[in-house]
Amino acid sequence: MNYLGLDLGGTSIKGAVVTEAGEILREASRLTHAERGATAVVGEIAALMYQLAQGDRFAGVGLGCPGTVDDESGEVLYSCNLNWTNFDLRGALEKRTGYRVRLVNDANAAALGEALAGAAKGAHSAVILTLGTGVGGGVVIGGKLLVGYTGAASELGHMVIEADGLPCACGRRGCLEAYASATALVRMTKEAMAAHPESRMHSISADLGGVDGRVAFAAKAAGDAAGGAVVDAYVRYLAIGVTNVVNLFFPEVVAFSGGVANQGEALLAPLREQVRRASYGSAYAKKHVRLVPCTLGYRAGMIGAALLAKT
Amino acid sequence: MNYLGLDLGGTSIKGAVVTEAGEILREASRLTHAERGATAVVGEIAALMYQLAQGDRFAGVGLGCPGTVDDESGEVLYSCNLNWTNFDLRGALEKRTGYRVRLVNDANAAALGEALAGAAKGAHSAVILTLGTGVGGGVVIGGKLLVGYTGAASELGHMVIEADGLPCACGRRGCLEAYASATALVRMTKEAMAAHPESRMHSISADLGGVDGRVAFAAKAAGDAAGGAVVDAYVRYLAIGVTNVVNLFFPEVVAFSGGVANQGEALLAPLREQVRRASYGSAYAKKHVRLVPCTLGYRAGMIGAALLAKT
Repeated sequence: MNYLGLDLGGTSIKGAVVTEAGEILREASRLTHAERGATAVVGEIAALMYQLAQGDRFAGVGLGCPGTVDDESGEVLYSCNLNWTNFDLRGALEKRTGYRVRLVNDANAAALGEALAGAAKGAHSAVILTLGTGVGGGVVIGGKLLVGYTGAASELGHMVIEADGLPCACGRRGCLEAYASATALVRMTKEAMAAHPESRMHSISADLGGVDGRVAFAAKAAGDAAGGAVVDAYVRYLAIGVTNVVNLFFPEVVAFSGGVANQGEALLAPLREQVRRASYGSAYAKKHVRLVPCTLGYRAGMIGAALLAKT
Repeated sequence: MNYLGLDLGGTSIKGAVVTEAGEILREASRLTHAERGATAVVGEIAALMYQLAQGDRFAGVGLGCPGTVDDESGEVLYSCNLNWTNFDLRGALEKRTGYRVRLVNDANAAALGEALAGAAKGAHSAVILTLGTGVGGGVVIGGKLLVGYTGAASELGHMVIEADGLPCACGRRGCLEAYASATALVRMTKEAMAAHPESRMHSISADLGGVDGRVAFAAKAAGDAAGGAVVDAYVRYLAIGVTNVVNLFFPEVVAFSGGVANQGEALLAPLREQVRRASYGSAYAKKHVRLVPCTLGYRAGMIGAALLAKT
């Protein structure tokens, strides 16, 4: 029998029928219509489940959801994107569909997907870092997600790397997210552009239709000094965070997703060098962490949610 | 049958016969004589094992060792205290005693002891932080030590909390260890004493026979402003590190050992308040981490090593 993996977002709900091995057989999506309220959203999820079932039963159903979820109680404790607080999502879905749906934070679902069926397939342990609007991710050890006592996600972006540093949305100052997200890269790019009217970043961003995470990397590749300085500063901060992650978890793989990760080796090559040099005991270690790009794209969350339902 | 737990240090080797439940039946110790070389040290360990066996057999033997150990290969990869590199300690001990000894980093052994039989007994997960010469510790999830892919310890002290901060012995700058160890507290105390000749820290340290980690706490308790500022700064840095640990691992318990932890509630009460306020999602969480003192003292390492041999 196959598993159903669902990825609930603020805009759309994506679903896929997934084999035991993590392969997608078919997928579909619907609009979330979060503004219509929780009951309507549950109706949309149920409709997507019936649409994908095509009359068959699933061996299990998993659902990734933004925010803080508690798979033990079945509740979404807090989701900013959906505007939910302490909502018994599992209860509502079970009543509607008969399925006892497993819940997981959406970033954690994607991490589990990459760990079991993507970038870190077969690895002893993996940390997935998403470099997007924020810095998210998940930790998978021996095939299992690290969710901790509270059931909450591993908040890798909310590790302070600069005491009294830049303010973060979480209320602390100096979190990794404030330095290593795509948002932070755009901020650094804009600051460098303001300071360097001669930089090629100006023409590159005009060609790209605005300043985004690609501008500094493209400028660096074209030999632009100011763009190079932005990339170097960004990689340095990210390397501090990744080295912290390595010193704490000693995973076999750290895999990167999100907009900035699309830079591939332009990001990963200098990052590998810095992390290798700074990691604790690396001079004597016989095994080293591998830094690689994620491979499953937007499907990671659905696959991970489906495979969670297997466990 | 009982287990034997050994704690190998640069000065002495401690050993205890431990029940399945983590209770010590008898203990003994010998000098390490590290300067005589690895073979002599192996001889001392074997002699201690025979002394404690009293003719009985053990169900298993575990040994905690300073430095980086690999329980898979049985090697001590690097130990600064013992001056060993890539030493096949398990092979040497098996040849000598017939026992296949499990190896574990000494700080991790103590963490496992506290998690299974001490401060965090019965907890879902625990992080143990040792605030001594350095900042060490271990992470125990579901009764198992987090050792990672490389087999190395969870290096909690080598998490950068201040980019470009104070230099650390590991080669990085701004590690938690440089701000939250007893060594760091003594440094901060001395700096404050130099800046404040009027502070009561001068007479307190004279009474104590020198400047140690107790001076600033005692001064604060006596209403001394400069001493209070040292304690507040120390707790603030420690809170950053502990909040990072909470955001990454979401453990049920964080337990503290080492010299500074002897301050008890003078340390833990303000720490709890700051960590609770800064932890990610704590406003919506239904479960919260508990910050407590360790309870097993120097016996934690022997108990943990013995219980590792059970797994």
